[in-house]
Parts: sequence; C-alpha cells; structure tokens
Amino acid sequence: MSETTDFRVEREALERFMKAVLRRAGADDVSGSAATRALVTASRMGTDSHGLRLLPHYVLALQGGRLKGAPRMRFERRLPATGYLDADDGLGHLAAYSAMEHAVEMAEQVGMGAVAVGNASHFGAAGCYALAAAERGLIGLVTCNSDPFVLLHQGSRPFHGTNPIAFAAPVAGEQPYLLDMATSAIPWNRVQQYGAIGRELPDQVAADTEGQVTRTPGEVAALLPLGGSEFGFKGAGLGGMVEVLSSMLAGMQHGYRLLPMGGPDMASPRGIAHFVMALRPDAFAPGDPFPACLRRYLDDLRAQPGRSGAEVLVPGEREWACQAQRDARGIPLDSANQAAYAELAERLDVPPLRPLS
Amino acid sequence: MSETTDFRVEREALERFMKAVLRRAGADDVSGSAATRALVTASRMGTDSHGLRLLPHYVLALQGGRLKGAPRMRFERRLPATGYLDADDGLGHLAAYSAMEHAVEMAEQVGMGAVAVGNASHFGAAGCYALAAAERGLIGLVTCNSDPFVLLHQGSRPFHGTNPIAFAAPVAGEQPYLLDMATSAIPWNRVQQYGAIGRELPDQVAADTEGQVTRTPGEVAALLPLGGSEFGFKGAGLGGMVEVLSSMLAGMQHGYRLLPMGGPDMASPRGIAHFVMALRPDAFAPGDPFPACLRRYLDDLRAQPGRSGAEVLVPGEREWACQAQRDARGIPLDSANQAAYAELAERLDVPPLRPLS
Repeated sequence: MSETTDFRVEREALERFMKAVLRRAGADDVSGSAATRALVTASRMGTDSHGLRLLPHYVLALQGGRLKGAPRMRFERRLPATGYLDADDGLGHLAAYSAMEHAVEMAEQVGMGAVAVGNASHFGAAGCYALAAAERGLIGLVTCNSDPFVLLHQGSRPFHGTNPIAFAAPVAGEQPYLLDMATSAIPWNRVQQYGAIGRELPDQVAADTEGQVTRTPGEVAALLPLGGSEFGFKGAGLGGMVEVLSSMLAGMQHGYRLLPMGGPDMASPRGIAHFVMALRPDAFAPGDPFPACLRRYLDDLRAQPGRSGAEVLVPGEREWACQAQRDARGIPLDSANQAAYAELAERLDVPPLRPLS
Repeated sequence: MSETTDFRVEREALERFMKAVLRRAGADDVSGSAATRALVTASRMGTDSHGLRLLPHYVLALQGGRLKGAPRMRFERRLPATGYLDADDGLGHLAAYSAMEHAVEMAEQVGMGAVAVGNASHFGAAGCYALAAAERGLIGLVTCNSDPFVLLHQGSRPFHGTNPIAFAAPVAGEQPYLLDMATSAIPWNRVQQYGAIGRELPDQVAADTEGQVTRTPGEVAALLPLGGSEFGFKGAGLGGMVEVLSSMLAGMQHGYRLLPMGGPDMASPRGIAHFVMALRPDAFAPGDPFPACLRRYLDDLRAQPGRSGAEVLVPGEREWACQAQRDARGIPLDSANQAAYAELAERLDVPPLRPLS
C-alpha cells in the first residue's frame, strides 16, 4: 500500500468503524472487539495484507454463515500445561486471543502453556497473538494452517498453505522481538503485485502448473516453499511442522483439505486449526538472566554493518517504526480499501469512515 | 560421502570403537555412550556432516580441556513444565539427551516440558534429541546456537551460527516425522564440497567479505540466511528465534560471541546453549485424534505428484531409507574418515575399526 495516499484515518475512528460494521454483520461484542484488535494491530504495523483489507472478507463470512457471530467457545484444560479450545466456528481472532490468554495463564503457573484450537477460522496475522504473549512478559509462538497455495519440495501441486509461524519475545524497555513469517518463499499477494506492475518475479519463489519455476507472474499456479527448488525441503518441512502443531493437535483436517478462504462457498465452516504457546522466560536458568542476555544480543545485532546501502534490523523493528509513524500520521487506506469501506458503510448503514484532515 | 566406498563398518563395531576412543580420551561411560548414540544415529541416517566424522573433533576437545570427560551435570526443575540443566562443560550429546529425558518426564506429567541447557557444547545433529522425544511417543523440538557463519538479513558480516531447528513427531507404525534444518540457506560444508569439485554455487546462498552474493566457492566468507537476499529476513528471524530459545533462556552468550568450534583454542569451554522441548500429542484435543490426523496427512502427502522426474518425500523419509540401507550394508567411511579413524586407533591404542568383508 502506498504511503503517499491522502486518505489516512485515526486509529480510534478505524476501531469504531470496524466494530460497528462487524456488529451489523452479526458479530457479538467480544468477537467484534477481538477482530478489530487484530486488524488494527496489523494495519498499524504495516502488515497491510493482513490488516484492515480483510474486514470485507469477514463480513462476507459472517453474513454467508461460514462464521458464527455469537459462537459458544469452550476451553478445556487437559493437563496443567495444555488445553483445547473449541472455537465453534467463530471469528478466529477471538479464538486465538482467548487461547493465548489460557496459554499465558498456564505458563504463569507451570512455566509453559499451549492450546490447540479447533473449529477455528482465519485469524489475520499470526503475529498478533504471539505479541499478546510478549505484552504479558512471555515468549509467544503461534502457528496456523491454511488452504493450499504452496508446493511440497519437488512437488507439482499446491499442498500446504502459507502456514505461518509467529514468534515474539518481550524486550525490556522497547517493543517486542517479533517474527511473523509464511513458510512459503513469497506471499501470494506479492505475485499479484508484481503482475500488476509487469515486473518479473525473483528466481526460485513461484511455479507454473507443472511445478516448474517461473518468473512470470501470469504463469504462477503455486508458491515454492521457503528455500526454493534446491532447499525447499526446509520451507516444506516447516510448513509440515505447522500442520502437525495446528491441524493434528487440534484434531482437524490439514490444509490441503480446507475449503478455500476466498469462496465461493461462504456458508460452510472451514475448520481451521491454530496452535498457541507461551513460555515464561524466567522459568529456565536461575536468576532470570533472560532480559540482560537478550539486551546484549540486540545491542550486538544493531552494531552489525549492513551490506552496501542497507541496514540490519531486529525482527519487528520495521513494523514498530511503521506503527509509530501511523500512530502519528494516521493509517492509510488505498483506493481499493476506500471503495470497499464506503460500500460497507452504505450497505450496513454505518457512518462512513472519514479521513484525517 | 560416496556410497561407493568399499570401506563399510558394522554399526555395533562402530559403536564399540567410538566408545573405546572416547574412554581413552577421558570420557566417562555415560558421556561416551551418549556421544556414540548421537554420532551413530546421524551416520545411520546419512547425515554424514554430523556423524562419525566428528569423533576426532570431540577427542581433540576432550584432550585439550575444552570438554570435561566426567562432568557433573545438574538438573533443576524450576516449575512443573520447565527446568535448567547445567552441563558443566561436558559432551553436548549427554547434556541434550539428559535434558530431553527431563522434558519428556515433565511432558508426561503436565502435557509439555522444556529444558534450557547452559554450559553445554557441540551436540552433533539436533535431530537426534528431537527423535529421542518421538521415540517416547512425544513431539520433540530442539534448537542450539553455534558460532557465527551466517549473515543477518542485509548484513555484511557473519552474526548467527547455522542455528539448527529440529522437530520430530511420532507416527504410528512407521519411523517419526523428522525435520532437522539449519537456518542458513546452505550448509558450510556444501560450499567446501562445491569448491572441491570446481562447481558454481546456487544463487542466493552465500556471500563474499562485503556481504555481496557470490556463486564462487573460493570467494565465500559467509552464508546467507535461508531465503537469500530478498527473503533472508525469514532465515535470520528463525536464527534469532533459536538464539532467544537457546542462548537467552539458558543465560548464556549468543552465538556471535562464541569461540569457534574448530579452534585453535581447544582448552577453553565454549558455553554453548541448547533448548529442548517435548509435547504430549494426546494432551490437546479430546479423544486423541493426533495419530489418525497425522496418518491422513501423510497419506495425502505421499499421494502428491512430483514435478518431472522427482518424488515428494515426508521429512525424514530420505533419512530412514538411508538408515535401512546402512543397517543392512554397513556404514561407509570415506578415505578421509578411514585415515582419521586409523590415526585415532594408533594414537589412543584402541583396536582399529575393520571394514565388513
């Protein structure tokens, strides 16, 4: 999304608009608040693919019946460090934030906690829920399955989803360390962006219908796993790890069998699975050395020279810089999102979102 | 290593030889047995870089004083799911196997268990310890820091080690799912192999002294993080996750500050850190759906068509095929290892290892 758009909105106004829209689409207050929290978190950080852009999608899924606006989510603690959350086909944001709350509570008691979430749905950016742990002073790890876009290593057909891994750790005196990555070589929307501007893709990131690498966006039928043709066993293995932790621990089907996020069926629940885990950093080596060790690591990292013209960054640092800028100047909506949001306001009879003047 | 070598040894003979050598180098029985178990596990699976090749290295480290042959390792359970193992500068294999034993025991009680290992040392292949969990019916995750060979994303100097991530899950009726990967784009010894045969490296895997990508093995000064120039934030972020879990939870220095594995200082302990975790697959969704879900996933995976001339494999499948073959035909030693093993036998007055006839 271009940062040069004139249409920028205040965070609080965006939150009010989202909550109103989601309420009109049938979401109860806790569901609407959780989805709003996740979408605004992603948009503030500049993760535009997983931020406010998704609001119309969730409205469709709520109105189509894929999602329950007032789910009855049930958590069962199975053992002192583990549990299962049945998300009852509600909004995935509420499911994942709730699951992480339970994981954090267990971790505070016994050092670690993890929750498998079944009958869940799309939750936006995985990083949001890892961050929720870090904001409580814990390490967070989150994974989620998704419908197939990514080849297996040496495969010719999409099998895994982009199966994200998010990891966050608290850093004393600054924003958390935050990694939020797909296990594919490239995001799907990057292929679309390159196609739109007629640019050739990097090598080793996408493939045609035969599974052969292509650099022509229009020929792309699948993404390569992280590592490309030669080392894609790494990305595919990480994608599989995500399936094991998400789909299998929750007893759900794996990504290959999921209905596509984009429809056309917006009436059937998809049965997505999440996995969330929290660790207490002070529950390992005696004397709580974690904060000082992490500080020394980050100091060393930031002192590293970049290659010509470039800068090394701590994972998350780019996002926190974007967040500071967007908190100060407003969150931008590109023309497609402006149109989509105007349409939502009109159709759902919600006051339209106004730009900052 | 060429599979065409005539010099193949029986597993039991290799184990006897390793244990005798390690005993002569000062290792006590539990240390020698643990190192032997790990090295033979890696060599049976075909992970030659982390198998029997390393025996002379550990002898040097024991004789030089870097490693204690009879360490007093101390485990402290900090909370029901977490603990710390002080490895007292003993062999890393004993430390990691012991730590995983404790993690498994905690997981059996409370669903999950994790142990940070401090004052540790090189442990060979990370996969060995994840496997140890899977062999007990649990999911295992293992990470370890290492001395710097890998650039940060957009960096120009090595900062992270190859910082491996190993993940294993039990599969009913067959060998475990096993991922054991470095977070670099390529292993260091692959660069050496390409150099030895005068072959150009793949693009986007290694860099020169300025941090610029090079495909000439002789120019390589560092490895790129997994993902290469454009998407290396993923590999670098995973490498950082490994540091956070390993170095920071154990209260040790991070990889950038470690003494090099290869010396010349073989007298000072290096203070490596491991992280091991075990999860009970039946401690999440009710009714233990894990085995059937994983079975369905593997069946679907194996039914996927490969791209022309290639085959899709489950992570670990290549290793298990190699293990079956080496268990039947013997474990090969290339000429360099034959020479190194003959030298060890001579110098330590141990009966030499004889090939199968």
